Amino acid sequence: MNRARQAPRAYLVCIGSELLAGQLNTHQAWLSVRLRRAGFDVVGESSVPDSAASVTAALRRALAGADAVIVCGGLGPTFDDLTRESAASALGRRLRFNPALWEVIRKRLARYHAQIPAENKRQAEVITGAEVLDNTSGSAPGQRLEFRGKDGRPRSLILLPGPYSEMAPIFNRALPRLASRHARGMGVASFSLRLVGVPESIADEKLDAVRARFPEASFTILASGGEVSFHAATRAKTLAAARAELRRLRQAAIEAVGAWSYGEDDITLEAALGRRLRDKRLSLAVAESCTGGMLGARLTTAPGSSAWFHGGVIAYADAVKTGLLGVSARMIKSKGAVSAECAEAMALGARKAARANIGIAITGVAGPGGGTKTKPVG
Amino acid sequence: MNRARQAPRAYLVCIGSELLAGQLNTHQAWLSVRLRRAGFDVVGESSVPDSAASVTAALRRALAGADAVIVCGGLGPTFDDLTRESAASALGRRLRFNPALWEVIRKRLARYHAQIPAENKRQAEVITGAEVLDNTSGSAPGQRLEFRGKDGRPRSLILLPGPYSEMAPIFNRALPRLASRHARGMGVASFSLRLVGVPESIADEKLDAVRARFPEASFTILASGGEVSFHAATRAKTLAAARAELRRLRQAAIEAVGAWSYGEDDITLEAALGRRLRDKRLSLAVAESCTGGMLGARLTTAPGSSAWFHGGVIAYADAVKTGLLGVSARMIKSKGAVSAECAEAMALGARKAARANIGIAITGVAGPGGGTKTKPVG
Repeated sequence: MNRARQAPRAYLVCIGSELLAGQLNTHQAWLSVRLRRAGFDVVGESSVPDSAASVTAALRRALAGADAVIVCGGLGPTFDDLTRESAASALGRRLRFNPALWEVIRKRLARYHAQIPAENKRQAEVITGAEVLDNTSGSAPGQRLEFRGKDGRPRSLILLPGPYSEMAPIFNRALPRLASRHARGMGVASFSLRLVGVPESIADEKLDAVRARFPEASFTILASGGEVSFHAATRAKTLAAARAELRRLRQAAIEAVGAWSYGEDDITLEAALGRRLRDKRLSLAVAESCTGGMLGARLTTAPGSSAWFHGGVIAYADAVKTGLLGVSARMIKSKGAVSAECAEAMALGARKAARANIGIAITGVAGPGGGTKTKPVG
Repeated sequence: MNRARQAPRAYLVCIGSELLAGQLNTHQAWLSVRLRRAGFDVVGESSVPDSAASVTAALRRALAGADAVIVCGGLGPTFDDLTRESAASALGRRLRFNPALWEVIRKRLARYHAQIPAENKRQAEVITGAEVLDNTSGSAPGQRLEFRGKDGRPRSLILLPGPYSEMAPIFNRALPRLASRHARGMGVASFSLRLVGVPESIADEKLDAVRARFPEASFTILASGGEVSFHAATRAKTLAAARAELRRLRQAAIEAVGAWSYGEDDITLEAALGRRLRDKRLSLAVAESCTGGMLGARLTTAPGSSAWFHGGVIAYADAVKTGLLGVSARMIKSKGAVSAECAEAMALGARKAARANIGIAITGVAGPGGGTKTKPVG
């Protein structure tokens, strides 16, 4: 059988007291998805405060139980940035000041600072044996360590800066090497199916047979914001074999839940809608009551939305429904602002006012579970 | 000195493979804030996949290093809900089926299911010595265990279901007892100051003196979405002493950064704006270009926003700017759609069209760092 060996294990360590004081940890989700796609099994995450003892202990534990440990945060210049020292200590290594690296950092800082703070020098301290990962968006470079664990298996420790704009490009550049080191002799192929208009439990049930048919593949199903996404990855000895298996899996998944699918991989619902409208040379306008502009704001997140989205009217007050959308005041009185009739009149009004081919209206009672009503008119 | 003993330590364990596959962990931030306000020091968080060995190991580690361990997730009825078994195993205790609890769960399920799945019976299994925490919004009850650690200090282990709507009310009901058990003889008072229009680094610097003056207090500064929030908590032997200290600290903080403050504690910028508009009996309309309705959507999140927010126009296409807002096509041609003149005309148009006292317009180039321009007209 063309069966791959066990997936390499990745562990995430997120450093920063703010993560234990109310700041949302968004790196965890971002990194998990990318590591899984690259063939890793993400076996855990720890959020650790800015304390040298805590960080050192967390890194020791992580390195004992995973092949690749990805660390974010604590690489800044200030006294509470302790990741360099803690990682060196967890590995029993030293930190060395790297004058060439300091020159690079100093030059980058000179663009923004008249005087370079002396404390920034700490950012040029490198763990013995580490490779510097250049940070093109900030002053804190990343570091990569490759060695063998006590079990003889290869280990990688990657230190990344905390800010997303610095962390993400360094990680993206480091991932191919990480994957080839730990997932060598392993082809990985993955895809995602984006579903809308189906509850997670129903989609999950329909996909049961697919999971049963591909016991070697790994699966995730996530529900968020009214959408469901189904992710699958196949592993084999070669990339070609993994891709062939994925093609069969994809076919089976589409047969099971394709009716609810609007797209694959990273496409968003807004972008998928935009693509169809552009293909059909149609334009869209909105009239929003209870949502106050949320639909319009979402539509404009699609790249190139100005080609098909004209805008519309936020008709929160009834006076705006009558004044800008031409909804009759008598109809609002007789049918109510939250009615199919009002939604239809609003949609027609938006289409006319914004000179678009299609009008969509939302009217309802704001708040959780409030009965909103959408009425597309084309 | 009226100095309190060290703060009790809380640790969070979030269970679910989805947290290591792309699902955002929002419980961590939510629970951290509440535990800190109640006087706890949140010393760490772990996200753990649905594997009995991983959960048991994580709970053992957490209980070794914290006074209170809060666990979310893995209390459902299916095979991969392993928190009950793992917690029992970490504590060296047994699970017992509780017939009275099963009756409660069964009755609740009977409202939604014609036939009650047999696997739900697992949710009536209770760890020896645990107290059941009633779940009024779902079928999975929480559990609370109170015992003493090897160091003789009191320990608490609280198991909560994963869905927010079930987790949050159970936690809120359990928190007072948790605080009185671990923070006994300790008064805790806290407040937050919400700032806007100031970079985090400047606010941080201005608050340095406040931190130096109150070395016993704990502080956090968070930046998110253009806002900065500053949190402070004081601890003393009595609540009255903690509150008196907090009053002095609050005064000092307001002197340092009060000019940028729009409110305190849980108030949002939208709600603070709404409160001022209501006090002055003023109403608001928006005209949005590049933001596509985002401002309107945010304004409608404020409770009671219909009293002062009328709505407005999403003028994404120039035809909507001229058609609905009365911006002159000639002016757009000469000054550009992204210009102070266009923004002013849009704001005036929105005010008139939506019959409001104040118009706000946003026009700019969408995309990160794009030069947006806001022009309030009153």
